[in-house]
Amino acid sequence: MPHTEHIWRNVDAVRRQAPLVHSITNFVVMNVTANALLAAGASPIMAHAREEMAELVNIVSSLVLNIGTLSAPWIDSMFLAGAAAHERGIPVVLDPVGAGASTLRTTTAAQLMERVRPAIVRGNGSEIMALAGAAGATRGVDSTRDAHAAADSARALSRRHHCVTVVSGPVDLVTDGDEEVLITGGHELMPRVTGMGCTATVLVAAHAAVAASPLEGAVSGMAAMSAAGSMAAERAAGPGSFAMHFIDALYALSEADIRARVRVGRP
Amino acid sequence: MPHTEHIWRNVDAVRRQAPLVHSITNFVVMNVTANALLAAGASPIMAHAREEMAELVNIVSSLVLNIGTLSAPWIDSMFLAGAAAHERGIPVVLDPVGAGASTLRTTTAAQLMERVRPAIVRGNGSEIMALAGAAGATRGVDSTRDAHAAADSARALSRRHHCVTVVSGPVDLVTDGDEEVLITGGHELMPRVTGMGCTATVLVAAHAAVAASPLEGAVSGMAAMSAAGSMAAERAAGPGSFAMHFIDALYALSEADIRARVRVGRP
Amino acid sequence: MPHTEHIWRNVDAVRRQAPLVHSITNFVVMNVTANALLAAGASPIMAHAREEMAELVNIVSSLVLNIGTLSAPWIDSMFLAGAAAHERGIPVVLDPVGAGASTLRTTTAAQLMERVRPAIVRGNGSEIMALAGAAGATRGVDSTRDAHAAADSARALSRRHHCVTVVSGPVDLVTDGDEEVLITGGHELMPRVTGMGCTATVLVAAHAAVAASPLEGAVSGMAAMSAAGSMAAERAAGPGSFAMHFIDALYALSEADIRARVRVGRP
Repeated sequence: MPHTEHIWRNVDAVRRQAPLVHSITNFVVMNVTANALLAAGASPIMAHAREEMAELVNIVSSLVLNIGTLSAPWIDSMFLAGAAAHERGIPVVLDPVGAGASTLRTTTAAQLMERVRPAIVRGNGSEIMALAGAAGATRGVDSTRDAHAAADSARALSRRHHCVTVVSGPVDLVTDGDEEVLITGGHELMPRVTGMGCTATVLVAAHAAVAASPLEGAVSGMAAMSAAGSMAAERAAGPGSFAMHFIDALYALSEADIRARVRVGRP
Repeated sequence: MPHTEHIWRNVDAVRRQAPLVHSITNFVVMNVTANALLAAGASPIMAHAREEMAELVNIVSSLVLNIGTLSAPWIDSMFLAGAAAHERGIPVVLDPVGAGASTLRTTTAAQLMERVRPAIVRGNGSEIMALAGAAGATRGVDSTRDAHAAADSARALSRRHHCVTVVSGPVDLVTDGDEEVLITGGHELMPRVTGMGCTATVLVAAHAAVAASPLEGAVSGMAAMSAAGSMAAERAAGPGSFAMHFIDALYALSEADIRARVRVGRP
Repeated sequence: MPHTEHIWRNVDAVRRQAPLVHSITNFVVMNVTANALLAAGASPIMAHAREEMAELVNIVSSLVLNIGTLSAPWIDSMFLAGAAAHERGIPVVLDPVGAGASTLRTTTAAQLMERVRPAIVRGNGSEIMALAGAAGATRGVDSTRDAHAAADSARALSRRHHCVTVVSGPVDLVTDGDEEVLITGGHELMPRVTGMGCTATVLVAAHAAVAASPLEGAVSGMAAMSAAGSMAAERAAGPGSFAMHFIDALYALSEADIRARVRVGRP
């Protein structure tokens, strides 16, 4: 199981290696996820034109596919980029925003799982359950299920697709279908800021680019997220100032912060 | 006429009911309006693919159509979503950004008025005058007319389309063509932050989802906006910090804040 | 060579004249560049529909073309708007984001140089070198070259296209192919915030709309950027708070701030 020293090693490796992370993502979170990557020491690139997918994937270290504001041409580019990433062997991280809320989202996410074979999928409980085919509808893009209720779906999804699944919630769950890791930290203000889930996804992608395994990258990315969230909450007067302090915290995050603020353990 | 207790009741109802608000909106303000909705206690969803319009409108409590960065496929989706919302009887709020500045914007806004029949339209003086067919050009997307000068247009527009019209300005005007309400509050920094008008629109949509009537929802949404703006201005050193404190203020807004900072009255 | 009094005159002229700046730009930076323009006293408009390009360009004072998240319909609109701007004689500023990273970006930027003939092009060292056809690849959208190494490319580009070229870096370089100006200021946090380069571009466009010449507008826009960056860094605890203080600083910027914080000189 990844320990604090692995988390810190990856936080530090992102700063030293500055992995280039390509996101095909939704309009709402482009700015905030780019800023999170920069604050963490990574280098973001956002692009969606099919003409440049293969070329760009060729120079990046990981790829994020986020279905938050889908449309047909963007879906095409996700498959193109995903195929190129799979061929190059770089980690692909899928964020199935709103899976379960519409057929377009559920179907696209399922097809991306099948055809792109992402190394990691990160969603909230509702989204992971929808993707695993479990009963229970998504309410818009915000989860109505907690991490524990979705654990069965996460395990099933990981086994079926040989991927790591992350379920975000008050306690985050990371599983490869076999091993399970729980991450405790963060703050209740986080779901009151748009794009915090999508930010977790890009941090996981940055960590996956430098980590020893997708499981380790997923755990350390989520742990960095939790530690920064906990630091930001201490200074925040509400979700507006939280968002600002969160970026500062990602930038300042130390090994001591991780030790003090995040608990990583078994269920 | 809506009084302070109605305003507070709606602020509180948004927090308790967390209405899901669907926006088909412009790229510039997606992040900030999503954050405003979350801070106010509502739940935002942004989506524009025609394939998922009917399904998503089926699970939301109100719909925002904002024409700030139009293109043909987005216009199609606005009509699709608008028709579905009209059929379901949920409130549609139109934000005619830049109406009067180009034929595309003026025509699209006019057609949305005709065919979607929004419950509420909110714009600045220039936009409302353009939509009402009054003389006087819009200068880009920022208003060159104040709320008073646009009052005649607002009244005419409301009568013609049986809708509530909101004219934002130093003093906001809300009318259903018959009754007129003026809302005094806010701060002169607000027009120096992009998307404050669009934020007013989404707050009105969240309030309309829980209010007794579109008029009451429009008044209470605008009043919440004004109160939060007044609170933010006290802490701001400029438009950057204003934007952050505004989100915190929406989150913290109390009944006492509304009483102390907003004046709602007749012309 | 532009002196401090010219810089201040343009900062002040932007506040008094409030030039309307039209951007066809990338999704990541729309919000932040709109806020920077508003804080500086200008008025932003973002639009990309081909149907409204000619009409909108007809009412604006300058045009920004930024290729950060290209796709075919946006490229078409860039050429349409660029042609209309050229015909009207208003300044066009090109931001060749990621030129060199993909054929689509390099080719589009080169064609915009040829066919639109922008008055000013602003990029980082890698982008300017790619545009000038120099050897050396762009790494994603962040520069791997400093301003000095790109000076030869900048000079060549300006001479070939009769334009002003700006190379952003720790020291900014502005040249018309003949005269060269170096601007020292800013802060090392700036590249850790997404869209700071794109923000420089829109400030240059606002200044070009009021300046005596493109060279003077480019220098004063970059100098305002540097001064505000230096002011923001004093209050920032990281890139999150830097971004907020930067907007406040643009709003508050005084002649004394420019004198104290920016050095403009010859190589």
